Amino acid sequence: MQIKQIAYIRSDFVEKFGIPRQSNLADTRAEIHFLPEYQNADALREIEAYDYLWLIWEFSESIRDTWSPTVRPPRLGGNRRVGVFATRSPFRPNPIGLSSVKLIGVEFREKEGPVLIVEGADLLDMTPIYDIKPYLPYVDSHPEAKGGFAEEKKDYKLDVNFPEMYLEQIPAEKRAALIQILEQDPRPSYQKDPVRIYGMSYAGMEIHFRVDKETLYVTEVERS
Amino acid sequence: MQIKQIAYIRSDFVEKFGIPRQSNLADTRAEIHFLPEYQNADALREIEAYDYLWLIWEFSESIRDTWSPTVRPPRLGGNRRVGVFATRSPFRPNPIGLSSVKLIGVEFREKEGPVLIVEGADLLDMTPIYDIKPYLPYVDSHPEAKGGFAEEKKDYKLDVNFPEMYLEQIPAEKRAALIQILEQDPRPSYQKDPVRIYGMSYAGMEIHFRVDKETLYVTEVERS
Repeated sequence: MQIKQIAYIRSDFVEKFGIPRQSNLADTRAEIHFLPEYQNADALREIEAYDYLWLIWEFSESIRDTWSPTVRPPRLGGNRRVGVFATRSPFRPNPIGLSSVKLIGVEFREKEGPVLIVEGADLLDMTPIYDIKPYLPYVDSHPEAKGGFAEEKKDYKLDVNFPEMYLEQIPAEKRAALIQILEQDPRPSYQKDPVRIYGMSYAGMEIHFRVDKETLYVTEVERS
Repeated sequence: MQIKQIAYIRSDFVEKFGIPRQSNLADTRAEIHFLPEYQNADALREIEAYDYLWLIWEFSESIRDTWSPTVRPPRLGGNRRVGVFATRSPFRPNPIGLSSVKLIGVEFREKEGPVLIVEGADLLDMTPIYDIKPYLPYVDSHPEAKGGFAEEKKDYKLDVNFPEMYLEQIPAEKRAALIQILEQDPRPSYQKDPVRIYGMSYAGMEIHFRVDKETLYVTEVERS
């Protein structure tokens, strides 16, 4: 089946490194802009009656010609193979992503038409979006469901040591989300070198950090 | 983007009339069969650690060449127009359906390979499936979310009067789901004629019924 891009996201993530492993793990704010053909306020009529939306999008940076029946999820340390359909890995037969995001509001702008302001998206900037659906809690929400191996790790968080002199360089409205992203541990799970310095792009800045045991230390912030 | 069918559903719904308006409204059992290329048990390794799965599928009976920014959802009586992205209507720019279903188990069969047994699917028999993802309650479940106009109607149910002589004609394991389907009121919402007889196909049978006020009366059952 041929599917058509209808919109794209504007987010603070310009590279994959640092993107939370799932939606809703950090209150990152993002915007959904429609392609000209779909810039139609009527198509969003009454959407603000919902708190959450589903986005169906393209893993545009993870497209492969072949598929592998198994993958190694980072949450399992990268060394245990599970079935691709037992994961949300981007490396699957169709590179389709699914994320629930919080709907903050709809804005109408002269150039871009209607824009959806959302929170919690785990999408790279400019990711193509194929569908937007309302989140219906009475059919979509199963709070008692078993969450498999992902569940076991859900409370894992790093302590973030973010010296004030560096934090001040981050726009005030971006600070909380950035700390949440760092708490999630952006490193590949199999890397445990306490002196290695990592660089992560976020909202036009490059955040340098290292991780020693359960603490992440921000070591530098620069404009990227 | 071109996406490839990986599987299809085997369900008891051979026509659209009678299919619950969302997933999980009736405990209908169904099977997911993979296309030969994807008949690989490894691809499902550890999937049974999850209670629910997401299916991304094709509204194969609702494909149109054009899109309309607004639709009239049956839950609103069919006479109020809302934005297509504020609904789960099949008539949208890309005919992509999204349903969470309960995973009952995985069976391995000589001919079909691995088969997923699921409950709660609102899919027509033979519907193409494009992706299967585990349901992650810690990111997918938002029980407190506002459910918009769909929420207002969620407790709406008909009383079902199913005379014993007719019920006995239904295989025992299909009865509970059939009653749940009838409770959901399969009629188009704008039809209120109490003497009109409707016919609904389900699991190889034709169920005839009429609806007077809040009660649905089964008037006949025959093999279809």
